[in-house]
Amino acid sequence: MEHPENDSQYAGLTVNSGVTSQPTVNPYFRPRRKPMPSVAEMVEGILRGDITMLSRAVTLVESVNPDHYALAQEIIEKCLPSSGRSRRIGITGVPGAGKSTSIDIFGRHVLSRGGKLAVLAIDPSSERTKGSILGDKTRMEKLSTHPSAFIRPSPSAGSLGGVARKTRETIVLCEAAGYNNIFVETVGVGQSETAVHSMVDFFLLIQLAGTGDELQGIKRGIMEMADGIVINKADGDNVGPAQLAQAQFRSALRLFPPTESGWQPEVLTYSGYFELGIPEIWDMIDRYFAHVDANGYFERKRMQQARYWMYETIDERLRRDFYDDPAIAVELAGLEQKVLANRVSSFIAARDILNRYFATRQK
Amino acid sequence: MEHPENDSQYAGLTVNSGVTSQPTVNPYFRPRRKPMPSVAEMVEGILRGDITMLSRAVTLVESVNPDHYALAQEIIEKCLPSSGRSRRIGITGVPGAGKSTSIDIFGRHVLSRGGKLAVLAIDPSSERTKGSILGDKTRMEKLSTHPSAFIRPSPSAGSLGGVARKTRETIVLCEAAGYNNIFVETVGVGQSETAVHSMVDFFLLIQLAGTGDELQGIKRGIMEMADGIVINKADGDNVGPAQLAQAQFRSALRLFPPTESGWQPEVLTYSGYFELGIPEIWDMIDRYFAHVDANGYFERKRMQQARYWMYETIDERLRRDFYDDPAIAVELAGLEQKVLANRVSSFIAARDILNRYFATRQK
Repeated sequence: MEHPENDSQYAGLTVNSGVTSQPTVNPYFRPRRKPMPSVAEMVEGILRGDITMLSRAVTLVESVNPDHYALAQEIIEKCLPSSGRSRRIGITGVPGAGKSTSIDIFGRHVLSRGGKLAVLAIDPSSERTKGSILGDKTRMEKLSTHPSAFIRPSPSAGSLGGVARKTRETIVLCEAAGYNNIFVETVGVGQSETAVHSMVDFFLLIQLAGTGDELQGIKRGIMEMADGIVINKADGDNVGPAQLAQAQFRSALRLFPPTESGWQPEVLTYSGYFELGIPEIWDMIDRYFAHVDANGYFERKRMQQARYWMYETIDERLRRDFYDDPAIAVELAGLEQKVLANRVSSFIAARDILNRYFATRQK
Repeated sequence: MEHPENDSQYAGLTVNSGVTSQPTVNPYFRPRRKPMPSVAEMVEGILRGDITMLSRAVTLVESVNPDHYALAQEIIEKCLPSSGRSRRIGITGVPGAGKSTSIDIFGRHVLSRGGKLAVLAIDPSSERTKGSILGDKTRMEKLSTHPSAFIRPSPSAGSLGGVARKTRETIVLCEAAGYNNIFVETVGVGQSETAVHSMVDFFLLIQLAGTGDELQGIKRGIMEMADGIVINKADGDNVGPAQLAQAQFRSALRLFPPTESGWQPEVLTYSGYFELGIPEIWDMIDRYFAHVDANGYFERKRMQQARYWMYETIDERLRRDFYDDPAIAVELAGLEQKVLANRVSSFIAARDILNRYFATRQK
C-alpha cells in the first residue's frame, strides 16, 4: 500500500544477512551487487567520512523500497548527534544564469578555505538516469574531481514534499560525514525554493543584468526570500549593465519589509566565467553568519526548521496514505472533472471521497 | 471526534422539525431562538436575495457543529449553479494603511455603478465577539448602512485552512444571493494572503508612502502577488512622497517576472479620506478584467481555484483527523520538545507517531 511502485533501481541491493552469496551451477545465476553493509557499518563509515558508505546510505534514503527506507531512518537517527555543524546555503537561479559554473567556482573558493563541501539539489521534475548523474558531475567540472567535494543530483522525480524531505535527510548524513558546507541547488522555477528555504541558513539568488527574457523563469516570490542576490556575467561590456541591475535590485529590496533575521539582503556582481568577485560573495556570507550567530537567529531558525520538517513529514505521509490508494485515485480523477465543470462544489467532492476513505479505516 | 468543541454559540439553533415549539409550564423553560428554516427555504431565500436567510446560512457555514455544517453543505450545493458570476477582489494592507476607510469608499464607488457588494474577511487570529462584529460594521460606517452591501467579519479563530475554507464557501452563498462584487479583506501580516489569492480574481495591495515603520507589517512575498498596488493618503503635503513611492514601486515591479495572467501590475495613488483617485483605481480593475476575459485567464484561474479548494479541503480534513485526536495531541507535544532539543530527528518523530495513528485505523 505504502510504496506501490517496484523499486527496480535498487533491485540488486539486499540487506546483508551475514551469509555471503555463493555462485551456484544454475546457468541463470547472475552475481548480486556487492552485499549491503549493516547499519552499524554504514554509520561507522559515514562518521569517518567514507564517501562510498555515504553514497550508499543516500541511496537508501532515496529508495522507494520501504525496507531500504526503514534502514535509512536507522542510519539517520544514529548520525543525528553528529549532524548540524555546517553552513547550509541554498542557491537558485534560472537555467541560463550560469548556475553550474557558479557553483563550481563558489565551491572551489569555499574549499580553498579548508573543510569539505556537499552539493545537493532539489528538482522534483528531474528524471534520475545515469545520463543526468553524469550530466550533474560534468557541469561542475572542476569541483566534481575535488577530493573534498561530494556532489549528488536531485532525488528522482516524485512529489515535491518527498523529494525535498529526502534532500533534507541527506543533509544529516553529509554533516555526520564531516561536510561542513552544504549547497542545496534548485532551478528557480517552482515551489522547490520554499522547501529549500526551510532547510538552509542562507538563500542566494543568482540573477543576470537586464529585465528581459532571462528573468522570465524566476518565479515570483523567490526574490523576497533571498538573503543575497548576486548578478552573474559582470565582465567585459556587461559590467555596466550588471552594475545598473545591482542598483535596481538594491532599491527594490529597500521597498521590502525587513527580513526576520534583521539582515539586510545585499546585492553583488560577479563573473563566474572569469572568476571575478567570488571572495566578496563569501565575505557577504561570512557577515551574514556573524550577524545571525550574534542575534541568536541562527539557532532559532534551525529549531523552527526542525519543527517544520516534523510537521511536513507527518502531513506528507497523511496525504500519501490517501492519494496512493488506487481506489481513491480512480475516484478522484472523476470528481476533479466534475469540479472543473462546476457540477459539484469543491467542498462536497472532498467530503464525499473522504467519507469513503475514513469508512474503510474505522477505528 | 470530528468536532470536539462544544458549539455554544449556536446552541439555540435547531433544525426545523416542522413542529413549532410551544411554551410550557416548566419554570426552567427558556424560549428558543427563531426555529431554523429548512434547507429548501434557505436556498429559496438566498436565491431571491433575502439578507436574513443569507446571514443564517453563513452562520451554518461557520458553525463547528457537524449537523449545522452538513446542512450548510446541502445549501452550498444547491446554490452552486447560481454562483460564480461576480468579481472577486482581495484587498490587503497593514493596520494603519487605512484599509477600512478605503474599503468603505471603494465599496460605495462600486455600488454607485449598480449591483451589490459583499465584504468578507479572513483573519485566523480574530476572536468573534459581538464587539468585533460591531467594530467591523462601525469602521465601514457608510457602507454598512447601504442596502446593497452585505458585510460579514472573519469566521472565528481557527486554523487558517478552516477559516479560509469557510470564507470561500460564503462566497458561493453571496454570489447565489446576487452579490456581483465580492471583497475579501485580510490583514497583510500572515499566510492568509496566499489563501485569499486562491479565491479572488484580482489582488489589491494598499500601501503608504515612506519605507519606514508603516511597511514593517507587510509580509514578504505579498507584494509579488499584487495585481495592483495603491498608495493611500496621497493628499496635502503627502502628495509628493506618495508619488515618489509610486515611482519606486513601479520600478521595483518591473524587476519582477511577468504574472501568469500576462497583466502588468499597476501602481496608483489615492486618498481614502478625501475620496480622491477612486474612479482611477476602478478603471484599472476594469482594464484587468477586460485583459483576463480576453486571454482566457479568468476562466482558467477559476478552474484552477476550484481544483485547489478540492485538494485543500481534503488535505485539511486529513490533517484534522490526525491533529484533533486527543491522544495524538498529547504525544505530539512531547515529541516536538525532543525534536527541538535535537534528541530525535524530525523524520523519526513523524514516523513513530504516524505508525501509532495508522495502527488504530487499520483497514
